[in-house]
Amino acid sequence: MTAQLRPNGTLRHLITLEGLSRDTLERLLERSQGFVRPLGTPPPLSHSLAGRTVANLFTEPSTRTRVSFELAAKRLGAHVVNLEVQLSSRVKGESMLDTVYTLQALYVDAMVIRDAEAGVPDSVAANVAPHVSVLSAGEAHVSHPTQGLLDALTIRQRKNRLEGLSIAIVGDIRHSRVARSDYHAFRTLGCTDLRIVAPPALMPAPDEFAGCSRHTTLKTGLKDADVVMMLRIQKERMGQADLPDADRYFAKFGLTPERLAGARPDAIVMHPQPMNRGIEIASDVADGPQSVIRDQVRNGVAVRMAVLEEALTGAASPGAAGAA
Amino acid sequence: MTAQLRPNGTLRHLITLEGLSRDTLERLLERSQGFVRPLGTPPPLSHSLAGRTVANLFTEPSTRTRVSFELAAKRLGAHVVNLEVQLSSRVKGESMLDTVYTLQALYVDAMVIRDAEAGVPDSVAANVAPHVSVLSAGEAHVSHPTQGLLDALTIRQRKNRLEGLSIAIVGDIRHSRVARSDYHAFRTLGCTDLRIVAPPALMPAPDEFAGCSRHTTLKTGLKDADVVMMLRIQKERMGQADLPDADRYFAKFGLTPERLAGARPDAIVMHPQPMNRGIEIASDVADGPQSVIRDQVRNGVAVRMAVLEEALTGAASPGAAGAA
Amino acid sequence: MTAQLRPNGTLRHLITLEGLSRDTLERLLERSQGFVRPLGTPPPLSHSLAGRTVANLFTEPSTRTRVSFELAAKRLGAHVVNLEVQLSSRVKGESMLDTVYTLQALYVDAMVIRDAEAGVPDSVAANVAPHVSVLSAGEAHVSHPTQGLLDALTIRQRKNRLEGLSIAIVGDIRHSRVARSDYHAFRTLGCTDLRIVAPPALMPAPDEFAGCSRHTTLKTGLKDADVVMMLRIQKERMGQADLPDADRYFAKFGLTPERLAGARPDAIVMHPQPMNRGIEIASDVADGPQSVIRDQVRNGVAVRMAVLEEALTGAASPGAAGAA
Repeated sequence: MTAQLRPNGTLRHLITLEGLSRDTLERLLERSQGFVRPLGTPPPLSHSLAGRTVANLFTEPSTRTRVSFELAAKRLGAHVVNLEVQLSSRVKGESMLDTVYTLQALYVDAMVIRDAEAGVPDSVAANVAPHVSVLSAGEAHVSHPTQGLLDALTIRQRKNRLEGLSIAIVGDIRHSRVARSDYHAFRTLGCTDLRIVAPPALMPAPDEFAGCSRHTTLKTGLKDADVVMMLRIQKERMGQADLPDADRYFAKFGLTPERLAGARPDAIVMHPQPMNRGIEIASDVADGPQSVIRDQVRNGVAVRMAVLEEALTGAASPGAAGAA
Repeated sequence: MTAQLRPNGTLRHLITLEGLSRDTLERLLERSQGFVRPLGTPPPLSHSLAGRTVANLFTEPSTRTRVSFELAAKRLGAHVVNLEVQLSSRVKGESMLDTVYTLQALYVDAMVIRDAEAGVPDSVAANVAPHVSVLSAGEAHVSHPTQGLLDALTIRQRKNRLEGLSIAIVGDIRHSRVARSDYHAFRTLGCTDLRIVAPPALMPAPDEFAGCSRHTTLKTGLKDADVVMMLRIQKERMGQADLPDADRYFAKFGLTPERLAGARPDAIVMHPQPMNRGIEIASDVADGPQSVIRDQVRNGVAVRMAVLEEALTGAASPGAAGAA
Repeated sequence: MTAQLRPNGTLRHLITLEGLSRDTLERLLERSQGFVRPLGTPPPLSHSLAGRTVANLFTEPSTRTRVSFELAAKRLGAHVVNLEVQLSSRVKGESMLDTVYTLQALYVDAMVIRDAEAGVPDSVAANVAPHVSVLSAGEAHVSHPTQGLLDALTIRQRKNRLEGLSIAIVGDIRHSRVARSDYHAFRTLGCTDLRIVAPPALMPAPDEFAGCSRHTTLKTGLKDADVVMMLRIQKERMGQADLPDADRYFAKFGLTPERLAGARPDAIVMHPQPMNRGIEIASDVADGPQSVIRDQVRNGVAVRMAVLEEALTGAASPGAAGAA
């Protein structure tokens, strides 16, 4: 695994939250919070990345995450190019590294990579020149670090801290990069009551998610929870193996107002989107007063601005001194 | 139908020209004219939308209208993101409104929507936050408001006013959003001799286009016309139902120099493009001295700049006081 | 063929290097060199094209050449729009020229065209308004002028001049636009020992590449060469006609360290990319000390900045007085 931090403790790459210290996460969250604006007011803007170039390398370009990274980069003054590439496979006989070297030779400063194949962002990071940063925008089922940060930021905005909170992550944990990055973020930031809630077929391997309690019903999983994080369930998995169809999934694991009532009265409801309304979550809940789903989107831009800025400017913030 | 104007009379959304007052249209045309430059000179530029964000949501991105909106926004200093989305259908289980709320949470100020399904732009407008504008870039067969404005602007540049003019719209009126927006623009701006010219199979329903005369031959439809607006005929409709094939269509409804001679000698010829040369229009006419087709394209950028600027800045122009 | 130079000797269009004078090429290379920066330092930036608009018209948008042109234009301050168009064929009944006239009416200053069909860039150039420039980004097998310039620039950076050098171009010469543009660049700049090396099936017609020696083995073709330019071999051609399969091609024409040893010890190795590693070139060579392949990519941005700037500003540089 390539080192993600520079010798001065600042972030150079962001491929996984695993192994990042609490100080580092706290600093990134603080930077991110500085970029948050209430909706209806102008977005944050700066010129700190003027003249820098960010390349979005997505296998499928029309995603909210691509737009979130693109706007984050543009609002910092960077040039952005979007490429639809399959880094994992060979396109026209060209290897992944030739694409990477080419982008580097075009003076690209940061490569934002979303790829279906595990290991690609780290392989790229291991091979780029010292001045280039690699930021994962979602890696297979393994990692989605900016999502983990934005989820942590969203919780902190509502609950101030993660210590002492009971957080339930519900749904297809086994295949979820969001769950894995949330796990690393929440645990590192002090959450000690983290619960994973899933039907047996969607539970992760026993050696993953150490320290989490496991629940196969919403009733026990949500009991007195402060935070309920619902995951998207892929329709394609429905009806497969031991997994029930959509209606039966909703009947057992769909978050309804009644079930949410089992959590704390001030519990917040989160979802990384896109949502399957009526499958993993009822619209009444998604659009209800406890939902912070739109805050998550807003915080996503802020987190990506913070990460891009620190990765590309390398400036050690005051809090970085003690960071590992 | 969502209100398109703010309480101060300025435009917030632009989904249809139907129901907009003459004062409003006149004001928008005046603003648009201020952005027109002769070809060969630099395009108009400003920074009035610096820091604002425009999202182009097109089901098919490679269209002249997308580029026209994109350049209009960029030349006002806005950030632009392009997304290829099907708002009308559910993509990966995500509803249209979730996409809209997400863009809003990304601090998008204006959503420019082209969609095959009627009603989509209005549904979006009914649901966005107060600071967000929705601009239609073409809605099914229903509405294409910036096209209506640019056509009116083009006519006024050549004929000064629409009152007293005889204007013929020729072709597939039944399926044309351009014809419908032209109809609203031209009638509101004072045109009293508006003619629709089409084979019976392409005539609109009897309760549409009130106040227009209907013609099934070019001979009567074009007689002494000041303006001849030719519409694109979809090849796919050819040979269907009562519609002749391309050659026979051209023989009966194609605009040739001979037929154009039946209009006034100073008549102008318009076409919203893309053209089927040799089907609805002869190249001699399309490229001839009476054609203002390229002016229409140039005016399109100007209209989109005016609309974007008024919608996003909400600044009431001096003339807005009396607008409804 | 449309004139590529303005009366004052500056470049207006760039469609082919054929027929451009040595003075013109030298001036463009000098301008290009001014935009070269070492990797790891910020890319060159200027505002010389502020307010200007560059349209990239590519049949397939995700290519390094599109990104190279896009970044070149953006780093000069221009607005850039990307369109995926098939100029050679009629799309939705719209002719190539209607697309061109439309872009022109949108105040596009430069059209960068990559097209599969020979003759398209010249047809467009013959029809645009006087203030519009047409730049080829690769035309069928005919021409790829910015590649020719960047290859010449790369050689000059390492060898100072082209006179007196022995340069071998190896591979599918017959179908290569790169080879043709290199030929024109290298010959015009004074190279007198230019060799084309290919299996008989990939040799160009006898009346092409006048003045070059022809070799059907690497052994004679590379002997004491200063520069070895390897071309991409399309896998689709493999096994066809008289052409061997990939393994046998590599066995006969693949550039290995052993074969490269037949060239001069300080020979440089080039490739326009994308590479088929293990088919036309061994990875040991592609990534070895004699390879300047990444310099080529870096020089590509510089050349495109120089060409865009001269074409769009029309400013005669001091050296242009004597240019034809």
